[in-house]
This record gives sequence, structure tokens and C-alpha cells, in this order.
Amino acid sequence: MTHRSRLAALVIDCKTDDLDAAGAFWAAALGLEVRPAAPNYVDLGSVGGLHVEVQTVDHESRVHLDIAADDIPAEVARLETLGARKVAEVKTWTIMEAPTGQRFCIIQGRSDAFRATANVWED
Amino acid sequence: MTHRSRLAALVIDCKTDDLDAAGAFWAAALGLEVRPAAPNYVDLGSVGGLHVEVQTVDHESRVHLDIAADDIPAEVARLETLGARKVAEVKTWTIMEAPTGQRFCIIQGRSDAFRATANVWED
Repeated sequence: MTHRSRLAALVIDCKTDDLDAAGAFWAAALGLEVRPAAPNYVDLGSVGGLHVEVQTVDHESRVHLDIAADDIPAEVARLETLGARKVAEVKTWTIMEAPTGQRFCIIQGRSDAFRATANVWED
Repeated sequence: MTHRSRLAALVIDCKTDDLDAAGAFWAAALGLEVRPAAPNYVDLGSVGGLHVEVQTVDHESRVHLDIAADDIPAEVARLETLGARKVAEVKTWTIMEAPTGQRFCIIQGRSDAFRATANVWED
């Protein structure tokens, strides 16, 4: 069996109640356009092949990476073998923590672009 | 006058003495290759048009963004107008803090690829 994964997104986590201001700053800073997506996040489109989002959070502000995978349990298992640990399953994604301390998420990868550009892993 | 800037890199800051292990984890997690670059960082190449690096730091582990600019003082001034503040000048780069709290760096952009893909700003 194989599965696929790739670095898919940068998520700019902002501890703020003012999502509009946070989205406006990061869009202007990075030269991107704000596209409101949901009550707690805005989509800034893509840079290269990476999606950029700004969201409001309760924890301290940071930037986190999303890895897309076509088989989330297989990707979580692969990353656990590398030394990461599973923190939580939330809706359709899984939060993990790297051995170096950063949290990141595993999200579902489904698009043709994802399949064309993802790494293929032997399970 | 104009200047140019673009989101150029993801830097994975790791509070660790073991750069080799940190680089190995992130390379394997993201499907990239480790290319040792300097005593305190490794180059993982590019995803899309974004450069990915892992470095050792004394502060808590995090991920930070680098914005490349062909005129760093002009880019710092542009970002200050947007609400960011300058934290420090270090060697060839400037550390800034977003109004939403994340630190990021302004680095020199010089390549043809940079010029071809950067945003152009009126100063």
C-alpha cells in the first residue's frame, strides 16, 4: 500500500478578536488578497503551491504548517514513526506535535493538484 | 520610486542542540532533502516557490516567515505603515513583529526569480 502527502498550507494563527484587521495586515504584508472563508478564518490564496490562511485562535499567535494527505491515519502513523506525536483529532484534521516542539496539522488532500505534486510513501 | 517584495521562505526554528535530528525530522515529514548550509541551519530546498530551512534557536520552537525585498529599508517602512514594528537589525536581515504578534524577517531579494515573482510597491 502507498499513501501521498505534501506540505499544503501556512496558517497564520492570530490571538485576536479582530479577524478583519489580522487578515488585512497579512494580505498587505504578503501582497495577497483577502477572501473571507468562514467566521474565524480568511483565505489569502496561494504563494507558489502553498495555501495561506489567517485564523483567529485562543492560544498565542504563531504560524503553523498543514500537511495534506490522502490517508490521514497512514500519514499520522508515518509521522509518529519519525518521532511526532498525535495531539488531537478535530473535525476533519489531526493536530500533531513535532519532536522539535512545533504543532502542525494533517488535513485531507483530495485535489488533482495534490495528487500530482504529493510525495508517495510506502506504508 | 518603487520596490519589490514577496513571501520567500519558511524558517522552522528549533530549540535544540541536535540540528541533524531536527533537519532529518522535517525533511522526512515534508518529503524534502537535507542540504547542510551553515553550522546552525540546514536548507531543505523549496516547496512551490518557497524556500524551507530548519535552524537552531535559543527561544521557543516556532515557524517564522521571511519576506524578501530588493530594498529592505523601504520594505520595513511599508510594513511599519501597516502596523508592524521593527525589532532588530541582524547581519543582513531585519526582524519585525506583526500587529498580530508573530515575528518575521525581511531578507535581501536579489535573484531573477525574485524579481519575476515579487510584488511591486509604490514608495
